[in-house]
Amino acid sequence: MQAWKRLAALAALAVVALAPLAAQAQGKEQYKVVLQVSDADPAKWGLALNNANNIQHDLGKGNVQIEIVAYGPGLAMLKGDSKVAPRLAQALDSSIGLLACENTMRNTKTTKDQMYSGIAYVDAGVVHIMKRQREGWAYVRP
Amino acid sequence: MQAWKRLAALAALAVVALAPLAAQAQGKEQYKVVLQVSDADPAKWGLALNNANNIQHDLGKGNVQIEIVAYGPGLAMLKGDSKVAPRLAQALDSSIGLLACENTMRNTKTTKDQMYSGIAYVDAGVVHIMKRQREGWAYVRP
Amino acid sequence: MQAWKRLAALAALAVVALAPLAAQAQGKEQYKVVLQVSDADPAKWGLALNNANNIQHDLGKGNVQIEIVAYGPGLAMLKGDSKVAPRLAQALDSSIGLLACENTMRNTKTTKDQMYSGIAYVDAGVVHIMKRQREGWAYVRP
Repeated sequence: MQAWKRLAALAALAVVALAPLAAQAQGKEQYKVVLQVSDADPAKWGLALNNANNIQHDLGKGNVQIEIVAYGPGLAMLKGDSKVAPRLAQALDSSIGLLACENTMRNTKTTKDQMYSGIAYVDAGVVHIMKRQREGWAYVRP
Repeated sequence: MQAWKRLAALAALAVVALAPLAAQAQGKEQYKVVLQVSDADPAKWGLALNNANNIQHDLGKGNVQIEIVAYGPGLAMLKGDSKVAPRLAQALDSSIGLLACENTMRNTKTTKDQMYSGIAYVDAGVVHIMKRQREGWAYVRP
Repeated sequence: MQAWKRLAALAALAVVALAPLAAQAQGKEQYKVVLQVSDADPAKWGLALNNANNIQHDLGKGNVQIEIVAYGPGLAMLKGDSKVAPRLAQALDSSIGLLACENTMRNTKTTKDQMYSGIAYVDAGVVHIMKRQREGWAYVRP
């Protein structure tokens, strides 16, 4: 019976692992979008977070991968003392990627302990956005 | 003679209907672009309309499909009392798609009778932009 | 001996000329990005130039092609009396393409002798951006 259980578990794993391939084969490839924040404007930060929520709501959380990339004057969005800080935890909970640009951090002498805890980092925000587009992600600048 | 006339009309229709396919076969696929308006800034609305006109002028009206998607703070561009309302009729006459975001309308308690008459609607502006990019449309945020 | 030298020089030239093809064959196709400037905001112009520098620094100058397209209210970035004029020479030295929109110039009665010397021109900035995207270039609006 143990053997059967293990086999069933393996089969379940296989189904989960192959689901994206199956979806792709049916032409239902997952949506992917990178949202750019490069303005020092809290209204823009809120709009980017609203956009992310609406995208997940409209397409279904499991059908879309979302990243918000903050760079240049937009870096402040992802600081610990950001005006949208209360909403960042919720974004992370919803598997929305929050990525800060380390280039901007170096140029503005910002350290990781000044940033919102739990976010991720990319070496250069603008290069990350270019790479995502090359990988087929949609690009939206709210 | 009537039969000949009908046949000629049918042939003419067939030529019109098949023209896009022929153009595509020659690698002259139609240009397609989605313009995003998400700022509450009438200067940006005017720029988006100028962009659309310039694109049609430069590529030829028949060679390009254009949509302007207004969402978030940009929704006001497509309201009945919009500062660019006098230009919206001309855009519609030129087959420039004007699309308002129903998500934004719900969130701001805006109803369709407050919007400029003759425009079209999408459920979520940002998702529409993503889908257009996936379909190969260019994306420009003026 | 002269003949050998000429042969060696030819061989060296061939290596340089074929490098991009070789890179492409290895799937390491050159990165290409078009940066849009359409705001009358010198901070945005500086950000676009910073972005271009960071991209070259991060990917390596030889691995990326960059164009900055200025149109609409952004045209002023590339004028002779631009607030970022001192940085434009350096951009040109670094092979960053600086392209001004002739459509905008006509509409604002701006002549080429008012523009920064050494820049290039496109008929319509927005159409150029569309064409670049169709050719597979990434698009970033700083």
